[in-house]
Amino acid sequence: RCFHFCKLPGRVMGIRLLRFTSVVIIVLLLVAGALTALLPTIKDDKLPNSRREPKTQSQSALDSFTLIMQTYNRTDLLLKLLNHYQAIPHLHKVIVVWNNIGEKTPEEMWNSLGPHPVPVVFKVQTVNRMRNRLQNFPDLETKAVLMMDDDTLVSAHDLTFAFSVWQQFPEHIVGFVPRKHISTPSGVYSYGSFELQNPGFGNGDQYSMVLIGAAFFHSGYLEDFQRQPEAVYALIDETQNCDDIAMNFLVAKHTGKPSGVFVKPVDIRNLEKDTNSGYSGMWHRAEHLLQRSYCVNKLVNIYDGMPLKYSNIMISQFGFPNYANHKNKM
Amino acid sequence: RCFHFCKLPGRVMGIRLLRFTSVVIIVLLLVAGALTALLPTIKDDKLPNSRREPKTQSQSALDSFTLIMQTYNRTDLLLKLLNHYQAIPHLHKVIVVWNNIGEKTPEEMWNSLGPHPVPVVFKVQTVNRMRNRLQNFPDLETKAVLMMDDDTLVSAHDLTFAFSVWQQFPEHIVGFVPRKHISTPSGVYSYGSFELQNPGFGNGDQYSMVLIGAAFFHSGYLEDFQRQPEAVYALIDETQNCDDIAMNFLVAKHTGKPSGVFVKPVDIRNLEKDTNSGYSGMWHRAEHLLQRSYCVNKLVNIYDGMPLKYSNIMISQFGFPNYANHKNKM
Repeated sequence: RCFHFCKLPGRVMGIRLLRFTSVVIIVLLLVAGALTALLPTIKDDKLPNSRREPKTQSQSALDSFTLIMQTYNRTDLLLKLLNHYQAIPHLHKVIVVWNNIGEKTPEEMWNSLGPHPVPVVFKVQTVNRMRNRLQNFPDLETKAVLMMDDDTLVSAHDLTFAFSVWQQFPEHIVGFVPRKHISTPSGVYSYGSFELQNPGFGNGDQYSMVLIGAAFFHSGYLEDFQRQPEAVYALIDETQNCDDIAMNFLVAKHTGKPSGVFVKPVDIRNLEKDTNSGYSGMWHRAEHLLQRSYCVNKLVNIYDGMPLKYSNIMISQFGFPNYANHKNKM
Repeated sequence: RCFHFCKLPGRVMGIRLLRFTSVVIIVLLLVAGALTALLPTIKDDKLPNSRREPKTQSQSALDSFTLIMQTYNRTDLLLKLLNHYQAIPHLHKVIVVWNNIGEKTPEEMWNSLGPHPVPVVFKVQTVNRMRNRLQNFPDLETKAVLMMDDDTLVSAHDLTFAFSVWQQFPEHIVGFVPRKHISTPSGVYSYGSFELQNPGFGNGDQYSMVLIGAAFFHSGYLEDFQRQPEAVYALIDETQNCDDIAMNFLVAKHTGKPSGVFVKPVDIRNLEKDTNSGYSGMWHRAEHLLQRSYCVNKLVNIYDGMPLKYSNIMISQFGFPNYANHKNKM
């Protein structure tokens, strides 16, 4: 309703309205100015000389990844690899899963040789279990995990490229080691690699798993892993094997698609032979591959079906190391 | 309201209700039965001996593709290629865009040499235009288009694999010929291939276009192409070139992502030298590449921005031709 103003003549009302709006505008500006002055000044509240966390604020959780490396009886290889991996672009933090029960971690020595590019956390374990590396570590701040075996050296170029591929396929295990299962007329599955016959879907080969010992995957899958049937943990503990096969089952069930995306590595090396410990890794055990076929069949029982799907997509980096890798005879 | 029934004693009402519902049910069943009898019987209304369309019903629109091949002055190559391409798995139909104005198509000869695996339609054009192949042909029944230049031979294995890749990336141009643009400090763009310097995003090369002369893409983009600014058609007509660059701009704008996915061909050949016509193709013109740089800059003007994005993903078929293509020295 329009009591006061409407009764006044037009010109007087115009002037009063103008004065009123001016006052309102000035008051608003003053309030805005006061609020701006109250804003906190941007300052870096981390000590620049802090050994442990010099640059963690600079990489956002989406643009960086956490390296999780489980280690047993190969500390010399571990330290060699840490020197390499600590400098990989987009690395946020390293989590070392220390399976050397009762043995001191090299943390003191590590700190004495600082500063380091990223924080490294040593998670001391109480039991030497293969699946220790699949815990949902509270230290994990990034969406992406890079999981590496403690005897595997992958070049920085390969890792940088594979990380960019993971960012385009975040629900998949993006890594460097493809494997497959095949089914047989008896209904029993077998696990293997290129030496097994092709699954028979057109020409060429197929893979249905990407091993997590050299791969990127979403940290959410570590959370999911905590909610699996008890029989899965029992199987991994019984065999001290197959945690990676179990993860592929988990991911395939979750996505309804092939669990992995294979990125062909340019430079991947196994440093096993270089260790002084004399310890040569689980995969040398005679029963290793048979165990893995056994695990595939057990997991099919546990999950009541075979969720793994085949893929034949192999990804390489265009024009790297040089453009010869894509030139054709056209 | 409840007049009749409610006044009746419970038992009598129950029996009457039962009778009533039984009658209703029987009537409904009779009606349903009558409707079923009226359904048309499923029959194949195509003559099994029809030369033109023997198997079109068997491939669904999602699992097959249409080959569109434009041809000018190279009928000998066209027919050689048609013999090869007509037998590619998952091919639904071939559309030949006949740019030989005033000249009879080889349709009669084609029919006399039947039967053929798939229908081939010759679309007679009235003007010899490069963009004739980008019409929204009513003959198109599939979601996927395979577009091939009339001098390009790609192996069936490559095509089958690339089609399966397209099915995983249906909004992209999935093909065998990657190209890129680079920007310069002056803001002027240049078009080229591996010989141009890398765009500088990390190591290795990048591509920002996949040429449509050997690629799969969604037929919806042909529809979209009809709705572009007039200046785009004028540019293509002026240069008799750049229709593929324009398509990449269109796709990149539509998706906000790199327009193409490069599949590294195992066996791709240019048959130019094999023609008896003496005609050697547009790309031999001295100004060809300069025209394409010119087109990139014109299209940036027309679309008021550079929509092309870089990718360095190169896809190959796992384990084909043999597993050596993915074995590593681990």
